[in-house]
Amino acid sequence: MTVTDPVRVLETLVRCPSVTPEEGGALSALEAMLKPLGFSVERMVGREPGTPDVENLYARRGSDGPHLMFAGHTDVVPPGNEASWRHPPFAAEIEDGLLFGRGTVDMKGGIACFIAAVARLVEKGHALPGSISLLITGDEEGPGINGTEKLLAWARERGEHWDASLVGEPTNPDALGDMIKVGRRGSLTGRLTVTGTQGHVAYPHLADNPLRAMTAMLDALMGKPLDDGTDLFPPSNLEVTSVDTGNTATNVIPESVSATFNIRFNDIWSAQTLKAELNARLKRAAADDTLRPGRDAARFNVEWLGRASPVFLTRDQRLSGSLAAAVEAVTGKVPALSTTGGTSDARFIKDYCPVVEFGLVGQTMHKVDEHVPVADLETLTEIYGHFIERWFALADAR
Amino acid sequence: MTVTDPVRVLETLVRCPSVTPEEGGALSALEAMLKPLGFSVERMVGREPGTPDVENLYARRGSDGPHLMFAGHTDVVPPGNEASWRHPPFAAEIEDGLLFGRGTVDMKGGIACFIAAVARLVEKGHALPGSISLLITGDEEGPGINGTEKLLAWARERGEHWDASLVGEPTNPDALGDMIKVGRRGSLTGRLTVTGTQGHVAYPHLADNPLRAMTAMLDALMGKPLDDGTDLFPPSNLEVTSVDTGNTATNVIPESVSATFNIRFNDIWSAQTLKAELNARLKRAAADDTLRPGRDAARFNVEWLGRASPVFLTRDQRLSGSLAAAVEAVTGKVPALSTTGGTSDARFIKDYCPVVEFGLVGQTMHKVDEHVPVADLETLTEIYGHFIERWFALADAR
Ligand SMILES: [Zn+2]
Ligand SMILES: [Zn+2]
Repeated sequence: MTVTDPVRVLETLVRCPSVTPEEGGALSALEAMLKPLGFSVERMVGREPGTPDVENLYARRGSDGPHLMFAGHTDVVPPGNEASWRHPPFAAEIEDGLLFGRGTVDMKGGIACFIAAVARLVEKGHALPGSISLLITGDEEGPGINGTEKLLAWARERGEHWDASLVGEPTNPDALGDMIKVGRRGSLTGRLTVTGTQGHVAYPHLADNPLRAMTAMLDALMGKPLDDGTDLFPPSNLEVTSVDTGNTATNVIPESVSATFNIRFNDIWSAQTLKAELNARLKRAAADDTLRPGRDAARFNVEWLGRASPVFLTRDQRLSGSLAAAVEAVTGKVPALSTTGGTSDARFIKDYCPVVEFGLVGQTMHKVDEHVPVADLETLTEIYGHFIERWFALADAR
Repeated sequence: MTVTDPVRVLETLVRCPSVTPEEGGALSALEAMLKPLGFSVERMVGREPGTPDVENLYARRGSDGPHLMFAGHTDVVPPGNEASWRHPPFAAEIEDGLLFGRGTVDMKGGIACFIAAVARLVEKGHALPGSISLLITGDEEGPGINGTEKLLAWARERGEHWDASLVGEPTNPDALGDMIKVGRRGSLTGRLTVTGTQGHVAYPHLADNPLRAMTAMLDALMGKPLDDGTDLFPPSNLEVTSVDTGNTATNVIPESVSATFNIRFNDIWSAQTLKAELNARLKRAAADDTLRPGRDAARFNVEWLGRASPVFLTRDQRLSGSLAAAVEAVTGKVPALSTTGGTSDARFIKDYCPVVEFGLVGQTMHKVDEHVPVADLETLTEIYGHFIERWFALADAR
């Protein structure tokens, strides 16, 4: 196989059915491609009680700095009903210039392009003045517990240090070159429970309907914008994702009601300041008696679920500048520097080194008939190649 | 057995474990007591596909008018954990002047007092100038489908007509003589469903969170009083009894959310005018974009659940006047004429004749250790006796 061709590399990877947490042969295929290129390859299994073991891979070429790390994942989301697919999800069939398969876009395609880019530099005899590594997890689409976070800690323990990282997730909304992600909003999830007094609807004065206070509190959570956004971040946004009572008796005022909500927040906030703001809003709403005339403040409790994802912004000019320049050189487009979208493993990497994200067009990710234009694979390979050269050149010049 | 003693009658009835839909021997016991008093007794079984058959009883003494009907039920709610009772729930044991047992208050006690009152009049040789009947169901605490409503229609078909009805449900909040019920609020139940567009919390602009519109709509339902009440009715009241989404994914904006609500309404409204008012409120709230800036009106649907109970008020002076006079004569108290509380079978009877309700003190009904003071049984028997005499006297004088 010619690993300088991203299409061949991607076909190989797609044919490994690596649905989280299965390795599916994908990491072994990578290992077989990377070793001939001069990478030393190590496999690391992430383990945690109550979760499936997950295989991960770390490969490094070179031993000196500067050190550029490419991060990604070979695990994919399930294909769903395979009969709904135009082409079998793990067949990697090409039709009309489109390569179909689960993971083509998210994100075996990004990995294939990066390997092809490195292979071309190696083939050209390019003397890269430093190290390149690949940090590849098999647990990005799943619980994300035995993947990137553990792999980073494991590598750091072995003395690994990186100067910059590129995550190859799909970042472009419509066309290759649209968007580089230079940060991510934070994410915070809470569960609000309001407790009242159960009773019969015919005797509301003997009860205290928690849905009255809940309505005021939902209004307080969603009614006033959290902020207007910052230079690189959109406004923070709160969505209530579920309100549940579970009361099937239509003549009974329920005892309590719960609501879950999630906030995607920008660099105006930390999880801590945001919790304080929301608690203050809820406290005010609980004391507001508009919907509960003459009542005392409602009793409520907020439980913060899981770990908050921190907000971060990468302000490393060398990294984002050389990537933007590479995009412009190949596509003629000036990419937007964006912080939109969900969380990604970049949130773990940012604690080790500056990190940006750039990959394919995300439109078909997680969908039936996920596919990538073959032409995009060639373009992304060229962008990655330019980027690697530029970044090392700027590192040299420092 | 001396049926002139309400305590003996009640003991007999309590010892019949007539938990809905079981007859439990209660109607047969009634039959055995009523026949010697000169009642002709008929049993009627209510049947409806998908519901258990329920036994009912209709007894009449006399063949001319005026015709006074006493209505009630012998079925009782389940005792719950019998071990929690101070005395076994079907033992009818007396301790410190209190008779314990399921149904003592709701409402075998009321039936016992009425039978004792009639028995005393018969024993005195009182010539009642008309007819007295008892319309007793075994399906008041259950679905209420095979009970009073069917029994009334069955009796009407056989040529029965009534001039007035007294329902013997417990009506007194604290002490015997507190309260006569002369009407009931109506009841209307609806289910509101708001449909939006599902999506990821990180991309709220691609979704439309139905919980935003729902919050505005809940506010519209509960925020503004429906009215201020009328001379004999309290203000109409709406309670939202459940809001449910069932979305367990905290990063997903749900597709839809439902809320159920119940309104207890006074004689300002009919079910029809109330539906119109609520639909108008919901339509305005759906169009309000405060919580959903720039969005089109939210899609929603209201389903009206079950049958609305109509509001009614009995303005029959002869009926409520002779009952109030009897209460005052025996207890020295002027009873409040009230329309508070839940619905009762009076809502069916009001289509046939004027109806009022008066019975024992309701505090322990449906609870563990339901009990009645033995003294109250004697007092209520006297009140019922005075009432029967007065009502027939006024009928005579007409
Ligand atoms: Zn991905
Ligand atoms: Zn009852």
